[in-house]
Amino acid sequence: MNKLLVFQTDFGLDDGAIAAMEGVAFSVSRELNIRHLTHNIPQYNIFDASYRLYQAINYWPQGTVFVSVVDPGVGSARKSVVVKTKSDQYIVTPDNGTLTHIDRFIGIEEVREIDEVKNRLKNSELSYTFHGRDIFAYTGARLASEAISFEEIGPAFSKDEIVRLELYGCHRIENGVMGQVDILDVRFGSLWTSIPYEDFKACGFNIGDDVLVEIFHKDLKVYSNRINYGKSFADVAINEPLIYMNSAYDMAVAINQGSFSKAYGIGVGSEWKITMTK
Amino acid sequence: MNKLLVFQTDFGLDDGAIAAMEGVAFSVSRELNIRHLTHNIPQYNIFDASYRLYQAINYWPQGTVFVSVVDPGVGSARKSVVVKTKSDQYIVTPDNGTLTHIDRFIGIEEVREIDEVKNRLKNSELSYTFHGRDIFAYTGARLASEAISFEEIGPAFSKDEIVRLELYGCHRIENGVMGQVDILDVRFGSLWTSIPYEDFKACGFNIGDDVLVEIFHKDLKVYSNRINYGKSFADVAINEPLIYMNSAYDMAVAINQGSFSKAYGIGVGSEWKITMTK
Amino acid sequence: MNKLLVFQTDFGLDDGAIAAMEGVAFSVSRELNIRHLTHNIPQYNIFDASYRLYQAINYWPQGTVFVSVVDPGVGSARKSVVVKTKSDQYIVTPDNGTLTHIDRFIGIEEVREIDEVKNRLKNSELSYTFHGRDIFAYTGARLASEAISFEEIGPAFSKDEIVRLELYGCHRIENGVMGQVDILDVRFGSLWTSIPYEDFKACGFNIGDDVLVEIFHKDLKVYSNRINYGKSFADVAINEPLIYMNSAYDMAVAINQGSFSKAYGIGVGSEWKITMTK
Repeated sequence: MNKLLVFQTDFGLDDGAIAAMEGVAFSVSRELNIRHLTHNIPQYNIFDASYRLYQAINYWPQGTVFVSVVDPGVGSARKSVVVKTKSDQYIVTPDNGTLTHIDRFIGIEEVREIDEVKNRLKNSELSYTFHGRDIFAYTGARLASEAISFEEIGPAFSKDEIVRLELYGCHRIENGVMGQVDILDVRFGSLWTSIPYEDFKACGFNIGDDVLVEIFHKDLKVYSNRINYGKSFADVAINEPLIYMNSAYDMAVAINQGSFSKAYGIGVGSEWKITMTK
Repeated sequence: MNKLLVFQTDFGLDDGAIAAMEGVAFSVSRELNIRHLTHNIPQYNIFDASYRLYQAINYWPQGTVFVSVVDPGVGSARKSVVVKTKSDQYIVTPDNGTLTHIDRFIGIEEVREIDEVKNRLKNSELSYTFHGRDIFAYTGARLASEAISFEEIGPAFSKDEIVRLELYGCHRIENGVMGQVDILDVRFGSLWTSIPYEDFKACGFNIGDDVLVEIFHKDLKVYSNRINYGKSFADVAINEPLIYMNSAYDMAVAINQGSFSKAYGIGVGSEWKITMTK
Repeated sequence: MNKLLVFQTDFGLDDGAIAAMEGVAFSVSRELNIRHLTHNIPQYNIFDASYRLYQAINYWPQGTVFVSVVDPGVGSARKSVVVKTKSDQYIVTPDNGTLTHIDRFIGIEEVREIDEVKNRLKNSELSYTFHGRDIFAYTGARLASEAISFEEIGPAFSKDEIVRLELYGCHRIENGVMGQVDILDVRFGSLWTSIPYEDFKACGFNIGDDVLVEIFHKDLKVYSNRINYGKSFADVAINEPLIYMNSAYDMAVAINQGSFSKAYGIGVGSEWKITMTK
């Protein structure tokens, strides 16, 4: 009872897609507690799907089953898989890179490829474009409700074979660190970087320091300024920038009650590097 | 226990309207399992409300109660009704055309007009603009929780009398079929047509064919091109168009990882016709 | 069982923030019934958070626990509190004005300041920017699941000390009333004013009257017209304006199937006054 099943997609909330997935799951078992991580992952953005899973999963109980469907290759040869994490949770997803952050920062215990003959919504064989409903929600619901065991998902394969995206991570440079702008705190426009708090701290920065922040688009320096390192937004005046440790324990850059991303036209991904130096 | 009650509206998610509806329902019974189809139906768009209900309902268990409130005529003489479908589900809605697709493709078993004296949230008699809360959520919750039976909703009337929108459907033409662009796969910009897969297949098209697709706005031809008929998006290169059978088993037109609707400025509704010919 | 816990924030639905809050709450107790008021409160807008709570709370059962996090001062000295309302519900929130409407129109019974040493997610001591997850969701979940009593939240303090925003309210003027445009019915663009139906009625207006409506931005009159007072939108033709009593029992101005706010560029807040006179 009260089995937790959490959906994440890039389908948005404007049509009947998520409701179809929920209906399939409740048809498997009415005892499921279906929740939603987000359905506004930017379309086809596997990196963001991977990141958001990692951002949320630590806060959920053991045994929670996550279904993540950002699946530009639906209908292609990419595998459908379920992994058991080292944190004793499950993720049902196309194997297209969505497991990258979980693999790196949480750890994967075991991988099974979904046997799509056995584990497919009845009478959906003709449907090729909505595996979120026909395969992933259905299989997630059966796993969460214990209609099938992890072993009944399909054949095991080595976790070394799962698809991984490259992660830029954090690099020590003279007088500081260099990382990438990984993602935005979307609603507020803050830049979340790939620089962990521990690495930043190891450079000897202290609360109250004015840190030199430089941001590069490809090879072009697009921002360079000293920014105060604070605990929280209220440590600086409204409309002032600050560096802080975000809720994922990485370093971030914000404007108090403003959008850093919009103010300076900063984007995310491998083309956007950031340095924090003394 | 675990009675399923599913809400759909055009109210959006930006204010307290949906929460007021939920609160009313939980005040009727805490045992309800309240879910959401979508609240982003375009404002006043009864066709879309009808379509989205149909898109989702097949995947939900028997006995599920749907409450759909797209109600430009709130406070006018339009009836408030509950129908029992041939699939043994219930829909609580203003009788304004919202039942069109359900009537055509699922079938309606019985119709009752809501007795708004008996079936109205207590002390809401002065409220004329939020029947979603005062009548529909309240009645849906009472029906789903079995506080009242279907018969206690109010007087039965003939299903022939319910309001129906005109559906364009699918027409056989020389060498192919003609339909209407019914709706978008909103998030991805694909065109979902009124041409069922069965009718398309009956013309003799096969996977891999290059199909001549022509789109008309009123009498003006606005698009004409041969498009590959694939099983799924990954059958064509990124940014290439394809025809495919969508998850509602109708024919659709998309650009792989792009928006067909935006790329060519294609809209939906009775002014937008589409042909698929050899 | 089935303890109701309702979240409201300005975090949006685009990332993993709400899911982290839910995960924390379900880790406290799987028996919680977590619901969502809205997460689209305009960023940092405490007035709207206060208003939306008030708009929804009346419809929820006694004992419901609301968690509202619009918290521009996170990490500053502002208090974290839980109040028990006269309607026997609970609100967990930063004490920054969010309780204004509840205090004025529902009444507050008792206030406790959250003891953030005892009532904080384990191992979150280093996190300064996401009290929604670490303090408010966690404490709300513990209160709703009865892991702690109201008394165990922390020390009581006088309700006179809670932070209140100024409310403009309604003023009698010659031949009518004057108020403020408080907020929009966001999706439909209707103006919701601070003029209660009772005060409007007391001026002697009757359904069918043409009321002189004037709207002022600061000192500038930006709209002046006679508008029909109707029960509901359908009382006027499509695209015609009307005055009506909204679902919160205050006076509102709308265009039937249009957006009054967009049509005339009308905003909300203390700079936007409105009069309704004979």
